[in-house]
Amino acid sequence: MHDSSKKVAETLQEIYSAEWDGFEDLKAIAQSNDLLWEDYEEKLADQAVRTMENYLTQFNEIKERIAKRGRKLVDYDGSRHHLEALQSAKKKDEAKIAKAEEDFYKAQAVFEELNKELREDLPVLYNSRIACYVTIFQNISNLRDIFYKEMSKLNHDLYDLMSKLEKQHSNKVFIIKGVSR
Amino acid sequence: MHDSSKKVAETLQEIYSAEWDGFEDLKAIAQSNDLLWEDYEEKLADQAVRTMENYLTQFNEIKERIAKRGRKLVDYDGSRHHLEALQSAKKKDEAKIAKAEEDFYKAQAVFEELNKELREDLPVLYNSRIACYVTIFQNISNLRDIFYKEMSKLNHDLYDLMSKLEKQHSNKVFIIKGVSR
Repeated sequence: MHDSSKKVAETLQEIYSAEWDGFEDLKAIAQSNDLLWEDYEEKLADQAVRTMENYLTQFNEIKERIAKRGRKLVDYDGSRHHLEALQSAKKKDEAKIAKAEEDFYKAQAVFEELNKELREDLPVLYNSRIACYVTIFQNISNLRDIFYKEMSKLNHDLYDLMSKLEKQHSNKVFIIKGVSR
Repeated sequence: MHDSSKKVAETLQEIYSAEWDGFEDLKAIAQSNDLLWEDYEEKLADQAVRTMENYLTQFNEIKERIAKRGRKLVDYDGSRHHLEALQSAKKKDEAKIAKAEEDFYKAQAVFEELNKELREDLPVLYNSRIACYVTIFQNISNLRDIFYKEMSKLNHDLYDLMSKLEKQHSNKVFIIKGVSR
């Protein structure tokens, strides 16, 4: 729509004779039209698209932590099986059992820390989507509000310009077939 | 822009949980958004594109009249040469000259009638382009005015909806990295 709006403004400039009232005003209107569109698109990219991208980058970090938790669960299980095997052996080696026990508690602690963090962070992340939507759509809404207001002003300028042109040429006979005015 | 605006509304509907406040309002907003766009595009086609098309059809009629004037000029010239040839002949045939004279005046009258009409109508048509531009751009301006106003209302509804959603979930912790609110 930026493009088509720009083309409409350019076409009007092409057909608008330099002797007609408002020739300079028209240039200003076309330039403002283009600037408003540029500003709107840039801010939309910044406040909506980039916000969404930032939100999404969190998922990569969380996915890595979920993968790490999986690996630590494997370690934890392995250390438990190793300990159980030593404990149920016919000939018990107390030194090896003590070392295996130590490894088991260590692996358990590492896994449970990661697990606990994820159990806390995942619902927060999931719920935070609402804040993300609210932020993005309020941003879009605010940007549209400004855009519509500014465009509306510019639109009134265009209307006034056309009225000026009509007045300048009011002595000419205007007959267009099929055009109801 | 109609399409992208529609897609934004559809996406919001897809991600919006049915238990969230304003789920029904959102549907109404999306439908109104679509209707406003349809109405705007339809009226633009009617009041701008079709007006221009009607204006342009006049040129076909004028072109035909210009072509006819050209053919009648050839007849006129032909009849004059014929008359001059008869008048300058060594052996003058008065009956033939009288007939050629009659033909000459007839051809002259036909050509001059067409020529006079075109000399009157062409400047009127050329000047009427101003009325055409004024009409089209005032129509566009009026349509935009209505569109921006209605869209602005709808936009405020969307903002209010998001505020409602935010309020409903205000007990949840909102942390989004990289999102300044």
